[in-house]
Amino acid sequence: MNTIGHIFRLTTFGESHGTAIGGVIDGCPSQLKLDFDFIDSELLRRKTAQSSTASQRKEPDQIEWLSGLLDGVALGTPIAFMVRNVDCKPEDYEALKDVYRPSHADFTYEQKYGLRDWRGGGRASARTTLPIVVAGAIAKQLLKEKGIRVIAKVTVMGDAERARREGDTVGGIVECRIMGVPAGLGEPMFGKFSAELAHAMFSLPAVKGFEVGDGFALAGMKGSEANDTYINKEGKITTATNHSGGIQGGITNGNDVVFRVAFKPIPSLAQPQQTVNRAGETCQIAIGGRHDVCALPRAVVLVEALAAMVTVDMGMMQG
Amino acid sequence: MNTIGHIFRLTTFGESHGTAIGGVIDGCPSQLKLDFDFIDSELLRRKTAQSSTASQRKEPDQIEWLSGLLDGVALGTPIAFMVRNVDCKPEDYEALKDVYRPSHADFTYEQKYGLRDWRGGGRASARTTLPIVVAGAIAKQLLKEKGIRVIAKVTVMGDAERARREGDTVGGIVECRIMGVPAGLGEPMFGKFSAELAHAMFSLPAVKGFEVGDGFALAGMKGSEANDTYINKEGKITTATNHSGGIQGGITNGNDVVFRVAFKPIPSLAQPQQTVNRAGETCQIAIGGRHDVCALPRAVVLVEALAAMVTVDMGMMQG
Amino acid sequence: MNTIGHIFRLTTFGESHGTAIGGVIDGCPSQLKLDFDFIDSELLRRKTAQSSTASQRKEPDQIEWLSGLLDGVALGTPIAFMVRNVDCKPEDYEALKDVYRPSHADFTYEQKYGLRDWRGGGRASARTTLPIVVAGAIAKQLLKEKGIRVIAKVTVMGDAERARREGDTVGGIVECRIMGVPAGLGEPMFGKFSAELAHAMFSLPAVKGFEVGDGFALAGMKGSEANDTYINKEGKITTATNHSGGIQGGITNGNDVVFRVAFKPIPSLAQPQQTVNRAGETCQIAIGGRHDVCALPRAVVLVEALAAMVTVDMGMMQG
Amino acid sequence: MNTIGHIFRLTTFGESHGTAIGGVIDGCPSQLKLDFDFIDSELLRRKTAQSSTASQRKEPDQIEWLSGLLDGVALGTPIAFMVRNVDCKPEDYEALKDVYRPSHADFTYEQKYGLRDWRGGGRASARTTLPIVVAGAIAKQLLKEKGIRVIAKVTVMGDAERARREGDTVGGIVECRIMGVPAGLGEPMFGKFSAELAHAMFSLPAVKGFEVGDGFALAGMKGSEANDTYINKEGKITTATNHSGGIQGGITNGNDVVFRVAFKPIPSLAQPQQTVNRAGETCQIAIGGRHDVCALPRAVVLVEALAAMVTVDMGMMQG
Repeated sequence: MNTIGHIFRLTTFGESHGTAIGGVIDGCPSQLKLDFDFIDSELLRRKTAQSSTASQRKEPDQIEWLSGLLDGVALGTPIAFMVRNVDCKPEDYEALKDVYRPSHADFTYEQKYGLRDWRGGGRASARTTLPIVVAGAIAKQLLKEKGIRVIAKVTVMGDAERARREGDTVGGIVECRIMGVPAGLGEPMFGKFSAELAHAMFSLPAVKGFEVGDGFALAGMKGSEANDTYINKEGKITTATNHSGGIQGGITNGNDVVFRVAFKPIPSLAQPQQTVNRAGETCQIAIGGRHDVCALPRAVVLVEALAAMVTVDMGMMQG
Repeated sequence: MNTIGHIFRLTTFGESHGTAIGGVIDGCPSQLKLDFDFIDSELLRRKTAQSSTASQRKEPDQIEWLSGLLDGVALGTPIAFMVRNVDCKPEDYEALKDVYRPSHADFTYEQKYGLRDWRGGGRASARTTLPIVVAGAIAKQLLKEKGIRVIAKVTVMGDAERARREGDTVGGIVECRIMGVPAGLGEPMFGKFSAELAHAMFSLPAVKGFEVGDGFALAGMKGSEANDTYINKEGKITTATNHSGGIQGGITNGNDVVFRVAFKPIPSLAQPQQTVNRAGETCQIAIGGRHDVCALPRAVVLVEALAAMVTVDMGMMQG
Repeated sequence: MNTIGHIFRLTTFGESHGTAIGGVIDGCPSQLKLDFDFIDSELLRRKTAQSSTASQRKEPDQIEWLSGLLDGVALGTPIAFMVRNVDCKPEDYEALKDVYRPSHADFTYEQKYGLRDWRGGGRASARTTLPIVVAGAIAKQLLKEKGIRVIAKVTVMGDAERARREGDTVGGIVECRIMGVPAGLGEPMFGKFSAELAHAMFSLPAVKGFEVGDGFALAGMKGSEANDTYINKEGKITTATNHSGGIQGGITNGNDVVFRVAFKPIPSLAQPQQTVNRAGETCQIAIGGRHDVCALPRAVVLVEALAAMVTVDMGMMQG
Repeated sequence: MNTIGHIFRLTTFGESHGTAIGGVIDGCPSQLKLDFDFIDSELLRRKTAQSSTASQRKEPDQIEWLSGLLDGVALGTPIAFMVRNVDCKPEDYEALKDVYRPSHADFTYEQKYGLRDWRGGGRASARTTLPIVVAGAIAKQLLKEKGIRVIAKVTVMGDAERARREGDTVGGIVECRIMGVPAGLGEPMFGKFSAELAHAMFSLPAVKGFEVGDGFALAGMKGSEANDTYINKEGKITTATNHSGGIQGGITNGNDVVFRVAFKPIPSLAQPQQTVNRAGETCQIAIGGRHDVCALPRAVVLVEALAAMVTVDMGMMQG
């Protein structure tokens, strides 16, 4: 279950403080000349330390391409890549080895696996999303050829500067728009375009909500307000409004696909928190380390990446 | 893509006005003695015509069991079942054959497949959710043996009686709680418990939003408000609050799993609506037929069914 | 694990003496007008009682189409179908209820599931291959549009008439040829065209061997004898010989795909055999019932059907 | 399609002369302490240059573990590993860049992908089987804990020394035995134990035949000769003979699983061969490079590895 996608598939691996983080992309069309500059620029968008809201870890994020390419052109075989973990400071986490950080995955990983990699969050670290950006950049390149664009932005975010001063963190909402997607994508029963998007977005750390079009607001509307009337716009059938977010019956209708993703605040707080340790004893922790105050700025490129991957994959499913 | 689940799997088939609606359950443990009364009672909860908000179609919903059972006991082989479509009135839909009903799947199905079953919504009809109730009832039976319960309820719903008078419809929100689920279920990367739930819920018609725990509200909270502190409760480690909805890092923490699903209003309105037909000509429609004013009352059992199926499946994945 | 295929997928259900045998085809292209006469003629090829080698069970094999079709045209949604089991004589098997028939699946099913459907072999009966013929016929129709033909024949078979007199049974070999298949089908690593064929053929009851091209004979050849030299035949690159059976590196090379399937003799003998019962006591059985002396004649259409399904599926994978 | 397995899964990547060859193992149970010495010893069995039949390429085969381990113990997360390709001599292959080597995958890869990695066979090189040995060694370790052993040997092989002198190559047969496998493994319809084995073995380069138990010989036997009589052996039900190779109805019966795999001769010949180039012109080639005369000695560990992986996976499927 470390694989996403049906035809355009990404398998990821890696722990925050292990040897490397990486991925294997299976199903990338052969003969695509990879745009490495674009991939690097996308990675830069995700990179930490780029702003006042982000953590201080220095990650060079230098990708090493391991397979699937000949002179930068996709062979049709699996494209494997990795980034080594350097600037690791496991000693920062030594004190947390036996403590369950509130709203982190420490406790649940231990319950699941009987052990956990306590160094920097291990597999649950946000750092493990790096391969998504790489696969997403390639997906965007494939979409660009078809005139499809994916653009996300932060629409809601708490007061990050104040939170930093208080040793606190904030959450927020990212809104994403897929433009130029053709009608007819998505499988109607258990592979709806919306369901695939939801599944992808909930794969990101800290995601707690997802809605398409007017989403939760539709629950309070009447049908006469919520319905999107079909119109004939210069010979092309489209809808006058887009409450549905471009998806009806699970299938794209040719309008922009619009959705929103809610992120909870980052659970690592500089201020003291109470919790228990492995022995069940109550204790206090204040998480030093190098952590973001808010995940939103770097979540934007992740949301876009997964949206692009889903769109490519659903396009391939449609043949 | 008409199959859901990894080990406990349901494949569904059927159009609203075709010969039959049914499913094949693969992965049900052998030796389970099916509780047919319970299955029937669950189907009754979904059934139309049971209340003032629901449509008038008479569906006997008599299940015919086709395979996988010997004297009502599961053989371990696929359990196939079906319900014949009777009381079909395709003539009710004759007038809609060439018209794209607003916010319905008519247009998108045609874009995808080049044709569509215009009789009663075809595969996009809410009637095709019937097999989910059957599989869900079996899943609940399996969960009951382990002390796990799944209970949903409508928490938000528009004014149905008024809407009916106005030829309008309403949407709403269903909240669901999975109680007694052990810690450790869910795969951490691309098969998070939350992601599997989201995917399942977005498989239901009219779903436009999904959130876990405090969901979208978390986007506006600070980490110090949102975090669930671990406590030692009579020797058992649990959390003092449940903002996370029982899921951290994608894995259950032993608390109740809590989530909400937003449904848009049913798009079939008795009042006149403007739209276009296949030729691209503007036209007016008023949908007669036998339709619900609100899908919420029957959505409750569907939400429970899918939640039960996901829980069983994730439990089997965990081994 | 009752599903075969990646995009063109068949899920089957049913026990020999249960209510019905059937299948669900997912991934059949929409707008295909099904050739029901052809499907019936293929079913007739599989049907029992058609020759001196086959059993006496009267099976009308009347297909009931349950979904996925509108006026005989594929909607793109799952095509479900079934055949009711009539002329069942479970009493023929009553005596075998607690006995493990030699080289049958009685013992292994019980070990796996803790119980088994003792009526006529249950899920392990050859009757459960019926849905394969239906899906195969549809696959052949799809291939025909592309000029691809699949033809199998019995090349080795024991002396059936003598075996019948002696209360014995015989095995044999079916050779199959896929003609007109384009070069480039098959996935090179874990989805080789040959591997997919092998997997499909071993899904048939009684199959114990599979080889491609010169197969096992290649093990005794030198490279200079076994290699297929490339030649330019009127502007088209092909091979002078076809020791490889049309597959190199797991991918079709444009030549005929040729393979052979070895079937063991049917294990149900009229002559007495020694075995043990559930209590572990030695006992003698002579299997009456209505059984074939040789499975080969009806295996031909099954081999063709699965070969056609694999070819369609691999074609869809190639896009 | 570079992934094998359902729960215990291996995804491989890499071309012969690319940066690295590697794999990602998903589904390895957490808390397993990897036996690195055993893995290395298995790799040594596959390594080239170990004998007179093998090629001269020096491969250090030094594994670098990238993820999924903490102090050598499996975390339950994906175990990624790789071996860098050193001692690459792409210039050896420069002359073959535009030529289709007989019975190699050059032509078929080009037909499939529109381009190919001409350096040393690229993805089709036998070198890409290295990750299978690693995953197989881990699978064997898991089986050992349950008292299951997998042992293969060469039973048929041509005269390698004579072939070398003649610039020729030879094929052969590997027989494998899985001992101690419990009854009840394998899925009865489309995931038969035999079908899964067949699929796995045909994933190896040069495999052209596969048979279980007496295999093709069963085609010429009578039922009374081929049947395996059940007996009570000191309180345990087993069979007196093992013509079935331990599998009945696709499910293991507790006896040794026995199968054979036929390998064609290596197609790279030192002696001159005629073929055509990309332009369709007839030409002669004599393949220098560093190639084996016979793949059989190193195929033994590969056959064992895949057999072990299938057994582990089917065991996990059984729960």
